[in-house]
Amino acid sequence: MPLTGNAIIGQSGGPTIVINASLVGAIQAAWDLDEIEHFYGAIHGMDGVLNEELCDLFREDPDLVEEIQFVPSAALGTCRLKPTDRDLERAMEVFKAHNIRYFFYTGGDDSQLACHRVSELAKASDWDMHVIGIPKTIDNNLVVTDTCPGFGSAARYAAICCQYVGRDAEAFGTLEVVEIMGRNEGWLTGATAAARPEPDAPPHLVYLPEVKVTRDQFIGDVQDVYDRYGYCVVAVSEGFTFKGEERVTTSDQVDEFGHSRLGGVAQWLGDVLEEATGVRARHDKLGNLQRCFAATASQTDLDQAYAVGQKAVQWAVEGQTDIMVTIERKNDDPYEWECGATSLMSVAGESRPVPREWINEEGNDITDEFVTYCKPLLVGRACELDPGFTSFPRFRKHMIERKLSAYERE
Amino acid sequence: MPLTGNAIIGQSGGPTIVINASLVGAIQAAWDLDEIEHFYGAIHGMDGVLNEELCDLFREDPDLVEEIQFVPSAALGTCRLKPTDRDLERAMEVFKAHNIRYFFYTGGDDSQLACHRVSELAKASDWDMHVIGIPKTIDNNLVVTDTCPGFGSAARYAAICCQYVGRDAEAFGTLEVVEIMGRNEGWLTGATAAARPEPDAPPHLVYLPEVKVTRDQFIGDVQDVYDRYGYCVVAVSEGFTFKGEERVTTSDQVDEFGHSRLGGVAQWLGDVLEEATGVRARHDKLGNLQRCFAATASQTDLDQAYAVGQKAVQWAVEGQTDIMVTIERKNDDPYEWECGATSLMSVAGESRPVPREWINEEGNDITDEFVTYCKPLLVGRACELDPGFTSFPRFRKHMIERKLSAYERE
Repeated sequence: MPLTGNAIIGQSGGPTIVINASLVGAIQAAWDLDEIEHFYGAIHGMDGVLNEELCDLFREDPDLVEEIQFVPSAALGTCRLKPTDRDLERAMEVFKAHNIRYFFYTGGDDSQLACHRVSELAKASDWDMHVIGIPKTIDNNLVVTDTCPGFGSAARYAAICCQYVGRDAEAFGTLEVVEIMGRNEGWLTGATAAARPEPDAPPHLVYLPEVKVTRDQFIGDVQDVYDRYGYCVVAVSEGFTFKGEERVTTSDQVDEFGHSRLGGVAQWLGDVLEEATGVRARHDKLGNLQRCFAATASQTDLDQAYAVGQKAVQWAVEGQTDIMVTIERKNDDPYEWECGATSLMSVAGESRPVPREWINEEGNDITDEFVTYCKPLLVGRACELDPGFTSFPRFRKHMIERKLSAYERE
Repeated sequence: MPLTGNAIIGQSGGPTIVINASLVGAIQAAWDLDEIEHFYGAIHGMDGVLNEELCDLFREDPDLVEEIQFVPSAALGTCRLKPTDRDLERAMEVFKAHNIRYFFYTGGDDSQLACHRVSELAKASDWDMHVIGIPKTIDNNLVVTDTCPGFGSAARYAAICCQYVGRDAEAFGTLEVVEIMGRNEGWLTGATAAARPEPDAPPHLVYLPEVKVTRDQFIGDVQDVYDRYGYCVVAVSEGFTFKGEERVTTSDQVDEFGHSRLGGVAQWLGDVLEEATGVRARHDKLGNLQRCFAATASQTDLDQAYAVGQKAVQWAVEGQTDIMVTIERKNDDPYEWECGATSLMSVAGESRPVPREWINEEGNDITDEFVTYCKPLLVGRACELDPGFTSFPRFRKHMIERKLSAYERE
């Protein structure tokens, strides 16, 4: 007997270029399903659930919904909330008050864990509700799934940046260090090397957090490339540290408010290189643009983001619960993929580093396996989005009436 | 009687997205002119002149030349050399040794000054040579010319970045400070506001170096916007300082090599805002990508860059010298422009700030005059460049034989 009632979807963690494609995939799938009576969007993710800030997604204009799939960064708003036990109890109250029978949450490993806990709590309190996690992270570090929606577009932007700043470094004959997101995993940094159109194209060296190198090797690597090409572009993950050294923020390096005034890792490494080689070194930190520069989005990424949102809704109504939708790779070239599913427990709180054998022996480049993996994820749109100056479409957000008293987080 | 002989062209200072369009405009114009027997490219600008590192541009494949106009960053290499008297004497020796009768130099105000000094020295040493400066700077700070090739494309990238990071800040409900190039002039920063598709679109506040504001006003401005919209994007020029305050790098804030470890102005202002408002503040520094991110180039900018290179060659052969080619605006809307000329002396070493009346009274936004000025410069290409992963075409650089002994700079 089909479960009929209302649904909530929320967006969590760092936004991506394609996170709204997942949302639109879910909304468009739900439109056709009788089991979902009302489909609510939680404003700022779990925060919106706790505060009953819910908008009625079925009251949005279908043309506008169609457009929003190409708009970067969480259209419903996002949050970085790690729910406490009390928060989850409150969430259950909200679910019951609004007859929520389907809950969808888009996010990384922490969000999948939150999803799983919601699912467990629903079971324990005898509330029949299907809970499905929708994968999302530019870091590409979720386990089980072959790739994470958000990664391909961020990787494409980072790779294009490396190639362009390479032109600038070549014109001057300088060193250039590019800092790329990723504290513990080097997927994005490695992808910039996977995009090299020819072996001597930038970035010439990439350092992933998975393999540490010594300061001496790093300087020697760069000097070698510079001697060969007359310039050198290095891409590093923000989590970079030298083997056997700890990067220290001394207490002197603080401003009037006691904040650390250290620049990023690229700035630091630029100084290290300039000192050691005597060659001018510049640096660029790609920063937040990696998760919102939609003009260079990946088509594969957009397709997959849409699909995982769509499948989440379809499969939930078909009776699945406590799972995250995954991407399964069927073939490398021609690239073939389909959606799969895994238990939330299998991904919750886990993270996937780049395999050691996908990084070369020296720890300064990737191997062919990484290139083969990455290439199909970096395909651009046949027609690039016009990055012109038109207003981004926004949901009208018809808020629904609250049914509970206000909630104060502890 | 027409002056017949060889020509040299060089590229100087910070590269831009369209600097090679000027080079290609010059090469393609020279191809049709009998007065120019050989057309040499100076490798790394004045450095290449002094070292006789000259390549024969007429031996490049015309199809390749055509392609290179869309490649960002100086295809001949660039330099930041301020020639001394001795350097200029050496340059004259090189010109005479290679029968150089035409000299073209692409750059900002310093490069135009170098051009003028070359021109004066040629006259003084009775060497008949026509010298024409080609304008180039993303800073848009050359006087006389209505705009500077390089500016429109850099402005377009910066404006697109502000709109995208606005999405990210809105999704979280945070403050965001974007740091844009420009130590003394706020043209690029102002342009990001000129591109706003609607009054409440980001950047909500822009601070140009031309008008200083107090710390209190700055914090109040941001708080007001945040209270109204729930997020706030601020764009500042890298030369930003508060009125009545000096930004100090204390001697403690240095690393092991004595380098200042201060982050950029955006990082600093982010901390100031977070401390004062209690709202999370992030920051992005657009950095070197402003002069090489070709995927979002401005069509107007590409057209004008090509034209100033083309006119420089045509007008030199027609007998003009000691001038810089300019852009003259004929009409705002529909936008009409043509090339003009001004004496090198009129632009050499001068710089043009944003007019006071183009910045609002409060010093936190631009006025309609700035918008009217900027709009036509920010037009994208009908078909965006494919920012895919193909090798950038490069000149083959057939180097010509040296005729002088080596030169050592002092």
